[in-house]
Formats: sequence, structure tokens, C-alpha cells
Amino acid sequence: MTEAFDAVDIIIAKRDGHELSTGQIDWLVDAFTRGYVADEQMSAFAMAVLLNGMTRSEIRDLTLAMIDSGERLDFSGLGKPTTDKHSTGGVGDKITLPLAPLVAAYGVAVPQLSGRGLGHTGGTLDKLESIRGWRADVSPAEMIAQLRDVGAVICAAGSGLAPADKKLYALRDTTGTVEAIPLIASSIMSKKIAEGTSALVLDVKFGEGAFMKDLERARELARTMVDLGRDAGVTTAALLTDMSVPLGRTIGNALEVRESLEVLAGGGPSDVVELTVALAREMLAAVGIADVDPAEALADGRAMDVWRRMISAQGGDPSAALPTASFSHTVTAARSGILTRQQALPFGIAAWRLGAGRARQGDAVSAGAGIELHAKPGDEVVAGAPLFTLHADEEARFARALESVEGAWEIGDTAPGERRLIVETIR
Amino acid sequence: MTEAFDAVDIIIAKRDGHELSTGQIDWLVDAFTRGYVADEQMSAFAMAVLLNGMTRSEIRDLTLAMIDSGERLDFSGLGKPTTDKHSTGGVGDKITLPLAPLVAAYGVAVPQLSGRGLGHTGGTLDKLESIRGWRADVSPAEMIAQLRDVGAVICAAGSGLAPADKKLYALRDTTGTVEAIPLIASSIMSKKIAEGTSALVLDVKFGEGAFMKDLERARELARTMVDLGRDAGVTTAALLTDMSVPLGRTIGNALEVRESLEVLAGGGPSDVVELTVALAREMLAAVGIADVDPAEALADGRAMDVWRRMISAQGGDPSAALPTASFSHTVTAARSGILTRQQALPFGIAAWRLGAGRARQGDAVSAGAGIELHAKPGDEVVAGAPLFTLHADEEARFARALESVEGAWEIGDTAPGERRLIVETIR
Repeated sequence: MTEAFDAVDIIIAKRDGHELSTGQIDWLVDAFTRGYVADEQMSAFAMAVLLNGMTRSEIRDLTLAMIDSGERLDFSGLGKPTTDKHSTGGVGDKITLPLAPLVAAYGVAVPQLSGRGLGHTGGTLDKLESIRGWRADVSPAEMIAQLRDVGAVICAAGSGLAPADKKLYALRDTTGTVEAIPLIASSIMSKKIAEGTSALVLDVKFGEGAFMKDLERARELARTMVDLGRDAGVTTAALLTDMSVPLGRTIGNALEVRESLEVLAGGGPSDVVELTVALAREMLAAVGIADVDPAEALADGRAMDVWRRMISAQGGDPSAALPTASFSHTVTAARSGILTRQQALPFGIAAWRLGAGRARQGDAVSAGAGIELHAKPGDEVVAGAPLFTLHADEEARFARALESVEGAWEIGDTAPGERRLIVETIR
Repeated sequence: MTEAFDAVDIIIAKRDGHELSTGQIDWLVDAFTRGYVADEQMSAFAMAVLLNGMTRSEIRDLTLAMIDSGERLDFSGLGKPTTDKHSTGGVGDKITLPLAPLVAAYGVAVPQLSGRGLGHTGGTLDKLESIRGWRADVSPAEMIAQLRDVGAVICAAGSGLAPADKKLYALRDTTGTVEAIPLIASSIMSKKIAEGTSALVLDVKFGEGAFMKDLERARELARTMVDLGRDAGVTTAALLTDMSVPLGRTIGNALEVRESLEVLAGGGPSDVVELTVALAREMLAAVGIADVDPAEALADGRAMDVWRRMISAQGGDPSAALPTASFSHTVTAARSGILTRQQALPFGIAAWRLGAGRARQGDAVSAGAGIELHAKPGDEVVAGAPLFTLHADEEARFARALESVEGAWEIGDTAPGERRLIVETIR
């Protein structure tokens, strides 16, 4: 940091559509981290980025500057390859839970730094905390030991990774600048690169229940992140996956752990299995393990073994019963026919209203709250049969949850068209 | 304020190119004034406005909301029409000084709320404060009395007018959003409309020494403000004037008062007289006085009479000698020929560096510092004759001032093309 720049000049350059230099971006991110560039300046800059975009090299510079704002983890001493997955978030997306132990079962280290949920998409840490005794906070030394001994760790990201990103992210939320692809890409990738993984597979979701509503934008984000990973020396691939229907048959913390255990036991809903296996295949291929079928390690119990050791290593009791909510309410089919529609977003919001998610950072979540889906689109239903069951710790929550799913499913006479879950792979 | 809106929704709507409703704009400005909408949110909004623009009705709503954020003055009890002038600011622009008393000489009330200078453009109040005893702060009651008895008042705007604009303006300065025409127009017009004038004439400058560098943008700003005035019931006209050369032959506080006195005495530089008379004609026409030649009231001393009473009414001694700086430095012509170039911006910056202007709000300015221009473009000069004289209270200031004007003038052999000062009138 030898050269001095001026924040207003940099904002104006981006506003007027010019490409910023590496020096300008480094200075801006460093000065913002130190508080020398004010929040209102960074917000105006973020809006200019959202409206005018950034070039590939600007995005790379921004990401590297975010990484440089904090510490980096280093797994090079482990003696085995590391690989990681990131999902842009969806409804019923519990894939990390079976995926991390599955990939670790092949001798690969999976350092999976995760977050808590906010709004209608659940957080991986919230789900695991429904397991008695399990703790999300792991020191760097414990993390290294667990990666060496067990192979997989799912834990909270320390605040030391990319603090500039954390600061910018908080601003974006209140200034209408969340949707800027260069900022989304650099936010995700700075943390993943700082985490020190050698390979990364992205699950970029699109559709009503996802952050990106349409395929085009999801593809652009995926392409941007894959390029960014490559530019930073991390083997990166992305799957574009459909998030218009909830993933699997459960939404909610303990409910999703239960479903993950079914998958680890060789069963589980076909869509969850399909996505878990596809992501595992990409993660393994990214570290040079191409000749295996990950479905085998689900079928033969190897993945479950890793899971049990992973949960135990973080203080959890893998044999303990999972908590359930105190009240339930089941909605039944008013007529016989075929379930033709089941919309991810309203069901996600309903689960959130039942207590599975939080409205503000720091709120507590209910372990048992959520929704079980007894039928999925394409399934035949008979009049009076259960369609879905709501679970909550307080009965009073059902009314608003039911309001949210009103009109969000439909029973018809003809089967809906085939829906592809994994639409595209970008490498 | 019955309806509740969300700041993020409003920012996103503008970001995505939608037109905001009156309710949304009212809510945003009110919530920003109260501190409920944060500075970083307003900055992101300002950047979205800069890049996506605003419709005529949005600009009107924004201006009215700014006005509603504070108090309004009311001159309807005066029993005579009121008219006012606003200049977007230039180098050597002392027009307000002779103009206000000139227009008042025709029986019109001229409540001229003015500001202090920041950067290379001087402030009207700074200039008048070089007159011994004169004070810029006038209470509303004193203002009304002076308008009734003298006809003209030039004074500081109270902080009660359009406080939302004041707050937004401070943000724009540091966030690269100064140049947004909807924000410039609403900022200027909200204060002028709140001031309660019934007619307004705008001097919108363009060229190197002006805020708007090119005629096109100046025309767009002028058109926007004239429409705004009309929509708010204020008769508004705008002159587009060239600011590529300093106005008149002086730049600096007391120096410009002295030149204004020459104009009020029936003399003065032709460009200052031309613009003063043209603006006076528009201001008088705007209140229905169309059959007069304002040059007459300069020639016969009526304007000077009003000036003396106006200065006295605010505690000033119109007969006191004006302060002069302690040091001067004259630059002479290196060769004989015709002065072909004299650039407004470098001369403005030089005067500022000599002490005539301030770098930050609250700094003191020097009354005597500035520049006298002995020749103007088109004038013949002989080798060794004085071209311009710098004045400063400290000798050490000359070096940087000379640096600023280096290459900013030129002596050639052929006269430069005719330059039109007033290029267009927009009504």
C-alpha cells in the first residue's frame, strides 16, 4: 500500500464505466476495511458496480483484495487434497450434511466452513446444532486435526476470513446492492479461496426458491465464479440446479438431519441422492479421483461411518434421538389426482414462520420446527391422504405458515412435465 | 405520512429503472431527514438516480419533499413582486452584487439568499464581508423589513430551508454523486422555492470554469430547473452563459466588490455589464415589467442608491475603503501580440490558492487576495505590459498560484473568434 488514491475518484471512475486498476481496488478495499473509506462511499460504489458491472480482472482484483483483508487457512501440510462445496442456498437444501462425509470417505479432506440461516433459506450450522452436544466452533488446530483424522469438518467460519467482505455484505443488504454479480461472486469466492481449499464445486441454484430467479443470471454467476476460481489457482466447477421445488421431503433443522441420515444409510429421496452423488463426483474429479461411483460409499456405509466420527469429533452424539416439535398440523388432499405443483419459496417461508429460520441475526431457531412433504410433484394422491405436515413448538404459528403456502401446491389430472434437477455443469 | 415504505424497496425500484411514486419519494426524504433512512442507503439511492435518471414528475416530487422537510419563507405580505437569481457558479462571477440593487431600483423585492465559496468558485457572502461592518446574518423579520424599505437583501440562507437537501448535498460530495442532474436541480430549486420568491432567473454556466463542462448538459440542467419552477408555480427562466473565460477583470473578494461598484457607477467591464443587464431584464420581465432598459438605472445612479442603502441596512459602511492584500506580483507580456486565451479554471484555482477561497468549510478567506486581469482575450498587448496581477497576504502564496496559471493564457498574432457570453435563453 504505497500509492494513495482518492475514494471519490474511484467511485466516479466506476460510475462512468471505466475499468479500475489493481492498485485502485487494493486501496479501496484496504481503506474500507480500516474505516478510512466510509460506508456511504462503499454503498455508492456498490451501486455503481451493480449498474455498470466489472471486468473479469476487476472481479479477480476485488476478490484477492478481500482475501488480503484477513487471514488465510493453509491445509497444505495435511498430505491429502482438499475440496469444498458451496451452495447459493435453497429450500430443503441439506446436501452438505451427507456430502462432506461422502467425499471424505474417499480419502479427501473436506473443510466445509458454513453459515447460519437468515430468512427462508436454512443454515447448515443450524441443522447440525439440532444434534445433541454438537458444536459449530472449532479452532484452526482442531480443524486440522479433524481433517487429518476424520477427513470432514463442517464448522463456523472464523471472523478472520475476508473481513472486508463481511463489512461490505452487511452494507449491501440495506442498500439494494445484494444482486450485483461481481459482488456476489467475490463475496463467495474470497471466503472459499481464503479457506485454502485446492478444489471447489459450486451448486448455483436458480428458480423461485433460489436467490437467482432465472437460469441466465445463475449461469452468469456460475461462469464468473468458475473463472475467478481458476484465476486464483483453485480448480472450480459449478452445477446449475433447479430450485423451483423444495429439495427432498423435509424443510427444517432436525427434519433435514433425519433425511440426511436416510441418504447416508443408502436411502432417502431421489432428488437429494442425485444431487449429493453428482456434487461428490465433481468434487472427487476436481482432485483427480475420477474412476469411482460415490453412490457406492452411501450404499456400503462408508459415508455413514465418516458422518458418525465427524459428529462425535465436534462433541455431538450421533446416536441421540433428534428433537421433534410439540405440535403438528397435517394438510390432506381435497381430491384425488396428481400433485402438479409445489413451490419452493412459499414452503420455505412457511418453514421459516414455523420457527425453523430466523428473522434477524442472533435469533434462536427451533430444532424441531419445519415441514414434511408427503407427496412431491408427479406423485399420485388420493382424497384425504396427507399432503404435508407442519411442525412447530407453538400451535399459534400454523395460521401464518398455512397462509404462506396457500395456492402454492395444486392437484391436477395430468402429470407435470419432467423436471431436470441438474441443468448444466460449468467447468 | 400515513403509508409506510421500505428504503431497500425504493432503492431497488430506482436501481431497476422504475418510476417512483409521490408517496415513495415523500417517505424517503422524510425518513432520511429523521435519520431513519441511513446515509449509506441514501448514497446508494443517489448513485442509482445518477445512473438511471428521474422523470419530470419524480424530480418535482423530490423537490417538493425537500421543501417540506423544512420551513418556507413568505413574502406575500410585502405588497410587491419578489424575484431572485441563482447562478451555478463561475470564476469572477460577482453579478449578484450589482444585480440585486439594480432590480430593486424598479420597485421589485429581491430576497437573495446566498452562500459562501468552497473550492475555486467564490461565494457572494465572502465578497460582501470584505465591506467593513457588513453582516450576512439577517433574521426573517429584518429581511422582510429590508425588502420593504430598501428592496434588496443579500444574506445567508437560514439552516431551516430544505434541511433534507443540505444533508443529501453533504453526502453527494463524498460519494461521487454530485453530477446527477435531478439532484442538482432539486437541490437548487428546493431552496429557491422554499425561499418564497414568485419569479426566478437562473444563470446556468457551462465551460471549463463552470460546474457543467459542456453546453448540452448545461441545457439539460436549465430545462429541468425551468420545468421544475413552472411545476411549482414559480415563473422561471434560464440563461446559458459561457464560463470558459473569467467574468470581468477581477477574481477575489474585495477586488470583485470594487468591480461591482464600477458597474453600479455606470462603468465596469463590458461582459459584467452585459450579463447584469440581461439578467435584470429577465427578472423584471418575469414579474411583468417588460418596458424598461435596466442599463438606465446603472447609468443614472438609482441602482447605486439602492446598493448603499442595502449595505448600510446590514451594518456595512458603503463609503469605507476596501481592504487590499499586503503583497502583489505582476506578470507581464513576454512579447507583443493579441491575448488569445485566458482560461477560467486555472485562474479561479490561482485566486483560491492566493487566499480568496477556502479548502474546507469554516476556513477563513482573505478579503484582499485575488487576481486583477489587465487584459482580456482579444486585447492587444505590448511586450513588457502587465497581463495580470496577483494579490495575497503572504508572499509565499505566489509560487503555487503561478504554477496553476502556467500555460493558461497565450499571446498570438490573430484575434480569437468572437465569443458569445449569453448563448441561449430557456423559458
